[in-house]
Amino acid sequence: MKKIINDPKRVVDESVAGFGLAHADIVRVEMDPIYVVRVDAPVSGKVGIVSGGGSGHEPLHAGYVGFGMLDAAVPGAVFTSPTPDPILAATKAVDGGAGVLHIVKNYTGDVLNFETAADLASAEDITVRAVVINDDVAVKDSLYTAGRRGVGGTVLVEKLAGAAAQRGDSLDDVAEIAERVNANVRSMGLALTPCIVPHAGEPSFTLAEDEIEIGIGIHGEPGRERIKLAPADDLVDRLIDPVLDDLPFAGGERVLLFVNGMGGTPLIELYLAYRRAAEVLQGRNVTISRSLVGNYITSLEMQGMSITVLRLDDEMIELWDAPVQTAALRWGR
Amino acid sequence: MKKIINDPKRVVDESVAGFGLAHADIVRVEMDPIYVVRVDAPVSGKVGIVSGGGSGHEPLHAGYVGFGMLDAAVPGAVFTSPTPDPILAATKAVDGGAGVLHIVKNYTGDVLNFETAADLASAEDITVRAVVINDDVAVKDSLYTAGRRGVGGTVLVEKLAGAAAQRGDSLDDVAEIAERVNANVRSMGLALTPCIVPHAGEPSFTLAEDEIEIGIGIHGEPGRERIKLAPADDLVDRLIDPVLDDLPFAGGERVLLFVNGMGGTPLIELYLAYRRAAEVLQGRNVTISRSLVGNYITSLEMQGMSITVLRLDDEMIELWDAPVQTAALRWGR
Repeated sequence: MKKIINDPKRVVDESVAGFGLAHADIVRVEMDPIYVVRVDAPVSGKVGIVSGGGSGHEPLHAGYVGFGMLDAAVPGAVFTSPTPDPILAATKAVDGGAGVLHIVKNYTGDVLNFETAADLASAEDITVRAVVINDDVAVKDSLYTAGRRGVGGTVLVEKLAGAAAQRGDSLDDVAEIAERVNANVRSMGLALTPCIVPHAGEPSFTLAEDEIEIGIGIHGEPGRERIKLAPADDLVDRLIDPVLDDLPFAGGERVLLFVNGMGGTPLIELYLAYRRAAEVLQGRNVTISRSLVGNYITSLEMQGMSITVLRLDDEMIELWDAPVQTAALRWGR
Repeated sequence: MKKIINDPKRVVDESVAGFGLAHADIVRVEMDPIYVVRVDAPVSGKVGIVSGGGSGHEPLHAGYVGFGMLDAAVPGAVFTSPTPDPILAATKAVDGGAGVLHIVKNYTGDVLNFETAADLASAEDITVRAVVINDDVAVKDSLYTAGRRGVGGTVLVEKLAGAAAQRGDSLDDVAEIAERVNANVRSMGLALTPCIVPHAGEPSFTLAEDEIEIGIGIHGEPGRERIKLAPADDLVDRLIDPVLDDLPFAGGERVLLFVNGMGGTPLIELYLAYRRAAEVLQGRNVTISRSLVGNYITSLEMQGMSITVLRLDDEMIELWDAPVQTAALRWGR
């Protein structure tokens, strides 16, 4: 296992500490229990938004803490849900009196631990609502999940709900936006290589030199099938066709097209994939109104990509364009 | 070779085309000869800035084209200098009447081809100045280079010179800023794994499972030494100590600390490395005033990192903070 780490047990603590030092203008880091919070939290009168989950998907979620997006992020151990304690602490830290929204990816541990934290917060008179993200069309049930997994759509929910909270929407309205985004977004991914969880020391699965896993999960969970290495355009088609057929996208829509790298994939390949995805959308009479290309929800050093398509309405476009100032997404400020 | 590509010969063309589609609000892409240019170029009365070099280092350079940074970027084949033709075409496309600055990384092919293009542009009455970036302290001469190589400092030169041009500085003043940044910046990198150039199909060098190359170049050129796998803090020390000793940084300075990934390194490791680098700087009484952490100058899917330290003055801080709107760096707009 070749990694830039010291002790596998200290990877998350040391990385989060470095994150806090690098972005002290945007976030504050608490270490016991561990969470990352907007430097100016709680923002009085604003709905607070908390997300979190296992580490190893960076910049998700800490990279999205800041003005116009998340108020706090709770990192678990690598690929392991955070416990209720830090989720509760983060929820209390961002409560500005207007309630708190939990954005939760649909993995059994995350859902349970966020629910427990929400119950504990309610007992302290904080109003909490939760939205569970489940945009991955690849498989219905999976390792760690009942129902569909939450993947790339999570980044878009965090941006759009974050912008709604920033402009002063109520908790119900922010939750409605989050649910609307989740209902209109679909994703699917593939892997060229596995990744190694530091405390495991070995890949959780293996792929032959000429094999690709279609429908991979962000923890390396099995997807739909293994195929032989194929040209990029074929690979893109194998992701975007199921994505478009699922909602379904019928033609005539405006969308946000998000081509995401799994962590170890160079940008040169992601943009090459974007080109084909754009061609497919054009062929189906779907208009790309906004784009995102890069490594935004990852699986450590895994090579691979996912494609996410969000059907946009006017309000979503306005919320996407609204100012944001986080470590990983920033414009207008 | 496992990559998301179609034909190795078409990787750059298809990727640049995708880049143009994804960022049509910021750039325009020309395909014959190939270059990427600000959507509003030429900007009348503003100094134009052109950079370029072999592809495979994305987001460098195309990712830095836009308001407040580069006016054009010229991508060569992977790890291969662009020829004078597209450099000349880009130079003409960004000439707003105030002259054009070439920012050139110190590799023999880049230096020669930019010189030839500058001569041709002069013959068409465009005033061109060039600044050659050579911030890599690892080795003096190397494969492809006489003198030191240009690496991470290039990103910082492009931002600061770009901001100076955007505020209306003259060609001489913009060139002076670029030279001042180059004189005050030092870098060094390491690799955990090699990368594969698509048209070669095989790694240009190999590393054993427990070996690390210290002082690696961004094309996989040999560095100073090969060592056994070591804890992250030791690896950081082996990069930052030579960087700090070279300028030298004597203590009392304000700096920008830039921890850069080589393309295949996850952010969780880069932030962990940042933590140690910050500790070392504090120990030497050097103040971190600005930070940059991420994959900004890469070597395809290589795993590894580089550390760059820039000694800041008041003007550099003002230029760093100035608004920028590119695909890869964006704030204030």
